Amino acid sequence: MPDTTTPEPEFDPRVRAQYADWARASIRYADLDPNGHVNNGAINEYFEDGRVRFRNARMAKFGDDILTGFAIARFAVDYHAPLGYPGEVEIGTVVKRIGRTSYMLGQGVFSGDDCIASAEVVTVYFNSDTGSSQPLTEELRSVLEAAMIAEA
Amino acid sequence: MPDTTTPEPEFDPRVRAQYADWARASIRYADLDPNGHVNNGAINEYFEDGRVRFRNARMAKFGDDILTGFAIARFAVDYHAPLGYPGEVEIGTVVKRIGRTSYMLGQGVFSGDDCIASAEVVTVYFNSDTGSSQPLTEELRSVLEAAMIAEA
Amino acid sequence: MPDTTTPEPEFDPRVRAQYADWARASIRYADLDPNGHVNNGAINEYFEDGRVRFRNARMAKFGDDILTGFAIARFAVDYHAPLGYPGEVEIGTVVKRIGRTSYMLGQGVFSGDDCIASAEVVTVYFNSDTGSSQPLTEELRSVLEAAMIAEA
Amino acid sequence: MPDTTTPEPEFDPRVRAQYADWARASIRYADLDPNGHVNNGAINEYFEDGRVRFRNARMAKFGDDILTGFAIARFAVDYHAPLGYPGEVEIGTVVKRIGRTSYMLGQGVFSGDDCIASAEVVTVYFNSDTGSSQPLTEELRSVLEAAMIAEA
Repeated sequence: MPDTTTPEPEFDPRVRAQYADWARASIRYADLDPNGHVNNGAINEYFEDGRVRFRNARMAKFGDDILTGFAIARFAVDYHAPLGYPGEVEIGTVVKRIGRTSYMLGQGVFSGDDCIASAEVVTVYFNSDTGSSQPLTEELRSVLEAAMIAEA
Repeated sequence: MPDTTTPEPEFDPRVRAQYADWARASIRYADLDPNGHVNNGAINEYFEDGRVRFRNARMAKFGDDILTGFAIARFAVDYHAPLGYPGEVEIGTVVKRIGRTSYMLGQGVFSGDDCIASAEVVTVYFNSDTGSSQPLTEELRSVLEAAMIAEA
Repeated sequence: MPDTTTPEPEFDPRVRAQYADWARASIRYADLDPNGHVNNGAINEYFEDGRVRFRNARMAKFGDDILTGFAIARFAVDYHAPLGYPGEVEIGTVVKRIGRTSYMLGQGVFSGDDCIASAEVVTVYFNSDTGSSQPLTEELRSVLEAAMIAEA
Repeated sequence: MPDTTTPEPEFDPRVRAQYADWARASIRYADLDPNGHVNNGAINEYFEDGRVRFRNARMAKFGDDILTGFAIARFAVDYHAPLGYPGEVEIGTVVKRIGRTSYMLGQGVFSGDDCIASAEVVTVYFNSDTGSSQPLTEELRSVLEAAMIAEA
């Protein structure tokens, strides 16, 4: 996380109440590994879906020009428990930190109240003309702040 | 379809009332093609999910020994309309024909009342010791018959 | 296949010499099913890759405007043998029939000389303004004819 | 990484010479995002393939009983550059740290000499009877040590 300027409150990714937005995904048979568990790659797809829904819900108003400027720079996931088939998962998403040119999301994949996996995802805002990172606009910052972890 | 013995009634795969069992799947961002539509391969995964749910709902009582004897021999799908993201699909499944050593399912992937794609799927029953196809048992036949298209 | 005008020669999809173009794909661990075999959906992705490479090799000169007019209307696949991991497959592609507004490809997925699966794929040429099918241009027809099964 | 006992040498994940083992994967059309780049989830599958090949090459002799005891606890990936289609990637894998009950791999996905993404992956060794982590055996440790980053 190159340029953090906002302090990070205490955060337990396994607690559902920490998350601002929720999405749902159904588990597919094709997600299963030879060992009969859901493959880690499928869990990573659930996280991606949570991010896209978050973006669509909160940033769609900015139009495609702004949105195509975002790229994921880092994805770090902790796998806490195995997951079976069939079933549904819920994906919680929240803004953990806002930097000058990037922000970090916290995410959790839940089966009921069980946190199957949690992740931190750093997204950088690029200028598509120059290919360099650029400062988040005030509009983007205020949308991100509205989705941050509530202080205790 | 090598060994059909049951006549096939009129069947319009785009009509929801034709199907015996239903499953649901959520569309994922990862399902999208460069053209912004859901990839045909993802639609094929929805069909697979419908079949696995059908099998779990109606044949789980036979145990793994019987179920591992099944293999898909033929999958033929007609794509009727493009599908977007986000959203959910419902997958209808019904038995269209029962042969001596195989059976054919009819399936439809629906977005609301719109049939996005329909498929015919032939499953053969194998003897895992010999690797040859073998006759469906009476128990399997009666389960399959119970899931056939109702006659008008 | 609505509007075939070209007769179809004898065709055995399990014979490598029948195919005009070849592509390669590596099998992934994520392709495996709970039963330890490559999932049918992954095999369908190999077929798709063969089609895209065929199109890129023979039709790229027509530009994106023409290419976005194509949509797959029907995909019918016969699964002949199970496939394991790791390994590579080769995908053969050939034009089987040319209609007025559509054409049919024949494809085979091979592991060495073993045909794992074979498919017929009908692609329709659409007018993206009207949403209706439209006649293949002479240019497209001559490219497709050059990729047809050689007569004995 | 809970219980590291081995010091970590300097490591630049973008340098091919750092890696002990290599695997290859072909990029698929189905890997593409709506933006025309390879999806991050597909890149994660390439990493997985590198790990499975690494395990098969170096640990297959221990048999399934030992291998099923491993589970990935953490996967952290940095995405450095976009990736297009078609093409191949090479995946480098090396042991970065060995702990008491776990080890950390370093991995890189390369297109030619360009490092597209790099990852750190923590694998924990579980006792499948108790569900608790257990110490790596001496045999496992010596296999892992043989695949560590060479000191300068």
